[in-house]
Amino acid sequence: MSLNPADTAFATRLSNQLPEGVLRPPEPRYLEEPRGRYRGQAGVLALPQTVEHVSVLIREANAARVPVVPYGGGTGLVGGQVMPDGPAPLVLSLERMTAIRSVFPQENVLIAEAGAILADIQTAAQGAGRLFPLSLAAEGSARIGGNLSTNAGGVNVLRYGNARDLCLGLEAVLPTGEIWQGLSRLRKDNTGYDLKNLLIGAEGTLGVITAAALKLSPIPVSQGTAFFTVKDPAAAIALLALARDHAGEAVSAFELIHRQGLDFLSDCLPQIRQPFAEAPEWSVLIELGLPRGLDPEETLAELFEAAAAAGLAGDGVIAQSGSQRQALWAVRENIPAANKAIGSVSSHDISVPVSDIPAFIERGSEVVAGLGDFRINCFGHLGDGNLHYNVFPSKGHMREEYNHLRGAVKEAVHDLVHAFGGSFSAEHGVGRMKTGDLERYGDPVRLAAMRAIKLALDPNGIMNPGAVLKTG
Amino acid sequence: MSLNPADTAFATRLSNQLPEGVLRPPEPRYLEEPRGRYRGQAGVLALPQTVEHVSVLIREANAARVPVVPYGGGTGLVGGQVMPDGPAPLVLSLERMTAIRSVFPQENVLIAEAGAILADIQTAAQGAGRLFPLSLAAEGSARIGGNLSTNAGGVNVLRYGNARDLCLGLEAVLPTGEIWQGLSRLRKDNTGYDLKNLLIGAEGTLGVITAAALKLSPIPVSQGTAFFTVKDPAAAIALLALARDHAGEAVSAFELIHRQGLDFLSDCLPQIRQPFAEAPEWSVLIELGLPRGLDPEETLAELFEAAAAAGLAGDGVIAQSGSQRQALWAVRENIPAANKAIGSVSSHDISVPVSDIPAFIERGSEVVAGLGDFRINCFGHLGDGNLHYNVFPSKGHMREEYNHLRGAVKEAVHDLVHAFGGSFSAEHGVGRMKTGDLERYGDPVRLAAMRAIKLALDPNGIMNPGAVLKTG
Repeated sequence: MSLNPADTAFATRLSNQLPEGVLRPPEPRYLEEPRGRYRGQAGVLALPQTVEHVSVLIREANAARVPVVPYGGGTGLVGGQVMPDGPAPLVLSLERMTAIRSVFPQENVLIAEAGAILADIQTAAQGAGRLFPLSLAAEGSARIGGNLSTNAGGVNVLRYGNARDLCLGLEAVLPTGEIWQGLSRLRKDNTGYDLKNLLIGAEGTLGVITAAALKLSPIPVSQGTAFFTVKDPAAAIALLALARDHAGEAVSAFELIHRQGLDFLSDCLPQIRQPFAEAPEWSVLIELGLPRGLDPEETLAELFEAAAAAGLAGDGVIAQSGSQRQALWAVRENIPAANKAIGSVSSHDISVPVSDIPAFIERGSEVVAGLGDFRINCFGHLGDGNLHYNVFPSKGHMREEYNHLRGAVKEAVHDLVHAFGGSFSAEHGVGRMKTGDLERYGDPVRLAAMRAIKLALDPNGIMNPGAVLKTG
Repeated sequence: MSLNPADTAFATRLSNQLPEGVLRPPEPRYLEEPRGRYRGQAGVLALPQTVEHVSVLIREANAARVPVVPYGGGTGLVGGQVMPDGPAPLVLSLERMTAIRSVFPQENVLIAEAGAILADIQTAAQGAGRLFPLSLAAEGSARIGGNLSTNAGGVNVLRYGNARDLCLGLEAVLPTGEIWQGLSRLRKDNTGYDLKNLLIGAEGTLGVITAAALKLSPIPVSQGTAFFTVKDPAAAIALLALARDHAGEAVSAFELIHRQGLDFLSDCLPQIRQPFAEAPEWSVLIELGLPRGLDPEETLAELFEAAAAAGLAGDGVIAQSGSQRQALWAVRENIPAANKAIGSVSSHDISVPVSDIPAFIERGSEVVAGLGDFRINCFGHLGDGNLHYNVFPSKGHMREEYNHLRGAVKEAVHDLVHAFGGSFSAEHGVGRMKTGDLERYGDPVRLAAMRAIKLALDPNGIMNPGAVLKTG
């Protein structure tokens, strides 16, 4: 399966079949990614306006065996959007396919083209009196096609699920260039294999998503936010169960926070007002989105009382206004900025089964301590079992001093995650950065099935080569 | 890809590798299905006790090119569980793999073997203070492996999703006999193609599910049930949106009922107490499952007031006790029995986009009336767009008189469903009964992809041949 570069002859063949303006000389911004680890090559850049354009582009690329790199908002963190090796690819950006094709408020469905910016979809849903709950840091520039191709997560997964769970149907171009008209708005349809979920999370290696039918939700009538201190992660997990007993699905976020994160905040962003006079070793940020008839402050106060009575919560702060809610969220939301200012030796986007989190955190501290003198900031989406497990230099030292230990730390953390039945990539995907991890930790039977599926749907291997599955 | 029968030599080869009792002479009950349309052939029957047994069985069947028919509870309605044509198969019943392997109440996860009866899983969840929300008529005999293989629906889909949405991970044996250890309890794991969702709904044609990690939910603190009359299906849909504005996700069932069903009930089951003195042309059954702090009767009364003010509801009955709730549900639950007593000419398990339901029902009446003198009972899971669209003889006539019209009615209804972007199989699957419909209505690009995936994972075509995809 040798591939050919997207050369001038190929570009000419494409331009004969497409309107002016679809093909462009490659610009540097399509060849970069946020972490600066990979640099793509300059082949041909295409900015299609319709699914038919995409079909022509992929069909010709398949005929000429030219690699295709689908490009959304470019916000991916694992190098899935740039191809540094092999023949120069056709870069296919969906940025001109941004239409919200239709909204069906009564059936909680919105149909968007793949290039629509996530925040624009949220706004369109809001305009129809509905909520599109997918929400993440890059929502102002990430595009829904990329969000689906990477099965994006974010802060509302606990209640509303991952991107996968928010999609009813897809329009997509398969690696042959054929258009799959799968833009179903149906909630129930049992007629064969689930091609939709196969494309979601495939990171552009099995085809290009061009549009999606998305699930909307009612907007919660009221919201409540609180910080509770807990004595340890086990208490946090028991508190989550208690919160769900009290408020059911209304628990929309449940974030674990360690003192290390609050200390980093004090050091780097002292203007952020902290909820407690003395930073607790462990605390949780709880968010409720409630239906009519329930008062958020009252519900949270009752929850605190029950949690305190059960020995699960020590101290608590319940927001009494919108600005207080924002202030509590600012604590959580600024931890990554503080982390960045400190500079981690190694960061990990991991998940473990929720009830194993306490044991994992304990063992993790031991394992990391065994490798050197580090500080650990472990925080994140406790309810989803998704932890940001970030390892930092000890106080007064710089990350550069630990360069020689980075590989060992990463491997030790991932080995431990694997031993707990966890994942080395909870929400960011495999991209090009973690193909080695997938080979190391992935179930070999599943990997063989993945390779067979890839070969069946993309026999020439043109779609995003080197992402997810190693080539050659 | 010619297949061989499961003959004595094959049985001997198997029995040399498996403990006594795994292989049995075939019994008639494994060769029948509830609707009596298909009769399976007698090959070899295997009752494995472990995933390793299943692995040996499939590996040997693959080597000998013997067809394998996985068998769950046998309750499927589309003939997926019996193979009437071709070489006599190995019938593989999971009925001895019934263990609830573990329950994790704090993380809302239960791990069950594929042969566990659905009702037993519900009971085990209840015992841990949790809800396993999959619920359907056959739950006393259906097995979870079959529920997942057919992506079962049922009465709680509106709130909790289909079987697919209730599964976190699978253990399965692929068509080569290899065991996929995919029994993940993770909520977030973005590491490659979604093999889980590919096996779910594949009706045993891509492998055998042997165990599943299932999602549990909190048990609602209180429940409320009401019948509201509505002037037409459009009002019912607007009422559903209003109910969600009032109660959010707490709306757990929303069933549309037509006067025809109530009339059938009066005729056939007069002992069932009806909610209204005079049967309304259209009504809806609403069920709420509420968290702490909300009173079901009060919430429903407020909803009724708002619905009446908006001109959406005429009359209403709100259950004031558990027995009144049961009485209201008995109306909905006995409609299928009344239908059966009347005897339909043609029944359809269909879905259309929710906001198209009014137009579909109107056009359906016209189309069916154009074919003859029929009565239509159209009812079902309105919130999911899933209607039971059943066509009956006119009063005083028998279904047998309409035999010559059955095919035309079915085709006309399915054509109309297809024109509305709907599905000819909302929850029952394709099985062997609807392979023709899939070829007629299925997207050709998706069908080609399905065939490519089938060939990639099951190159010898041993797994449940003739189900989902036609063979030969």
